Amino acid sequence: MNANSPKPLIYPDPAALRHAIRAGKFDAHTSGQCPGYAQANLAVLPQEYAAEFLRFCQLNPKPCPILGMSEPGNPVIAALGDDVNVSTDIGGYYVFKNGEMVEEVANLKAVWRNDMVAFAIGCSFSFEEALVEGGIPLRHFEQGCGVAMYRTNVATRPAGRFGGPTVVSMRPMKPADAIRAIQITSRFPNVHGAPIHFGDPAAIGIRDLAVPDFGDPVDLQPGDVPVFWACGVTPQSAIRAAKPPLSFTHKPGCMLVTDLRNSQLAVF
Amino acid sequence: MNANSPKPLIYPDPAALRHAIRAGKFDAHTSGQCPGYAQANLAVLPQEYAAEFLRFCQLNPKPCPILGMSEPGNPVIAALGDDVNVSTDIGGYYVFKNGEMVEEVANLKAVWRNDMVAFAIGCSFSFEEALVEGGIPLRHFEQGCGVAMYRTNVATRPAGRFGGPTVVSMRPMKPADAIRAIQITSRFPNVHGAPIHFGDPAAIGIRDLAVPDFGDPVDLQPGDVPVFWACGVTPQSAIRAAKPPLSFTHKPGCMLVTDLRNSQLAVF
Repeated sequence: MNANSPKPLIYPDPAALRHAIRAGKFDAHTSGQCPGYAQANLAVLPQEYAAEFLRFCQLNPKPCPILGMSEPGNPVIAALGDDVNVSTDIGGYYVFKNGEMVEEVANLKAVWRNDMVAFAIGCSFSFEEALVEGGIPLRHFEQGCGVAMYRTNVATRPAGRFGGPTVVSMRPMKPADAIRAIQITSRFPNVHGAPIHFGDPAAIGIRDLAVPDFGDPVDLQPGDVPVFWACGVTPQSAIRAAKPPLSFTHKPGCMLVTDLRNSQLAVF
Repeated sequence: MNANSPKPLIYPDPAALRHAIRAGKFDAHTSGQCPGYAQANLAVLPQEYAAEFLRFCQLNPKPCPILGMSEPGNPVIAALGDDVNVSTDIGGYYVFKNGEMVEEVANLKAVWRNDMVAFAIGCSFSFEEALVEGGIPLRHFEQGCGVAMYRTNVATRPAGRFGGPTVVSMRPMKPADAIRAIQITSRFPNVHGAPIHFGDPAAIGIRDLAVPDFGDPVDLQPGDVPVFWACGVTPQSAIRAAKPPLSFTHKPGCMLVTDLRNSQLAVF
């Protein structure tokens, strides 16, 4: 590193990062922040939709693993740590009306309502950390881009107004690494768990790996097979399809950083 | 079943089966016998070769998982159960001289020597039972044949005179079943553990799946991928290559049935 390049500031402590965000001092992507701690997707829905969405998540635990949820109207999720306020502790938010994104906001204070229920949904950052610690090369890191995500023809189990296709993230790897990655991610059922498919993309309705529906295209190296994990974009996609009059999510890449350690999420 | 067809006799208890074998009342294949109990491959070598072979197994635990070994000259392996005598408790044996099979015998009493050391090596019957309990269809069972086995270009780590290629068994399955099979067999490190490869056979030096080196060809169903596990034929093959002046093995299919429960071999 050039002696004059700015060092990226890494907050080791989740509470310190959340306080910096809350004070308006940090609004960047959270990838790499607070190593060892679990980051989460945020979805906030009116109470009238929340029970159905909860049932949707419980029917579809692989794409929609719930790490915590709030009481109606209360933006604090006690299960996620000390004073975690989902209306202020994320670096950016999207506001949706009838399933359409209408506004990007720095916090939810002005738009919050006393009937809103917040859900924190597990994120693949947790298992990617475990894969990297396990010595498994991740091609999107090597290629300096985001992960590739695809809509599949694997239907979720619908619950009321929520349903639609499973969205997957894809990581190319050698078969021996894929076997190890299945072992490692099986330990993390609350952050998408084991893959749902590997190999032939057409078998799950993906026409062209080079054209992801979300994220960036990621190249396979010779001998790589594509490995597909259920992805946290699935619940976001189900929410857009359900068209609640009002809903909020985190801005992509700006996750909720919790006090839960990734190692706490491992089942054995 | 026709009311007049003979029922195959299943011994539920390993000690009872071993006593029947010892008394000359049973010499058939042991597949399906004593459900829930671990069966083992047998290899018996002169003490002069045994230390090197033990080192070979410890360097190559996936193909050569040792469930138990004897003291020199003593055909009893206490670790495997109550009064397990490897010279009398198997339904058939092969005798090798300088690596060549020279004789099939009903027991080892006449050929045993006081310098012989016996090794019991884990067998895929144990994890196949767990796969079937897990609802994973096994094509060789559906097709009423043996498993397909292949020599690969994956070298074992040599130890003294022992070495050579890893031999694998292949089970075709759907990718989702393969993911579950990796989870299930990972629990059984003492009976070959997780697969070592899936997909492209050429990547591990297999030219034609339809032409196995051992066992029977097994057809893939549409959408199946071949999944490859390290196989207990690997140590047998290494022993033949090492050409000890005298050695014994079980007759293929006639395994040593132990008092160890398969569930005891699971690591979690």
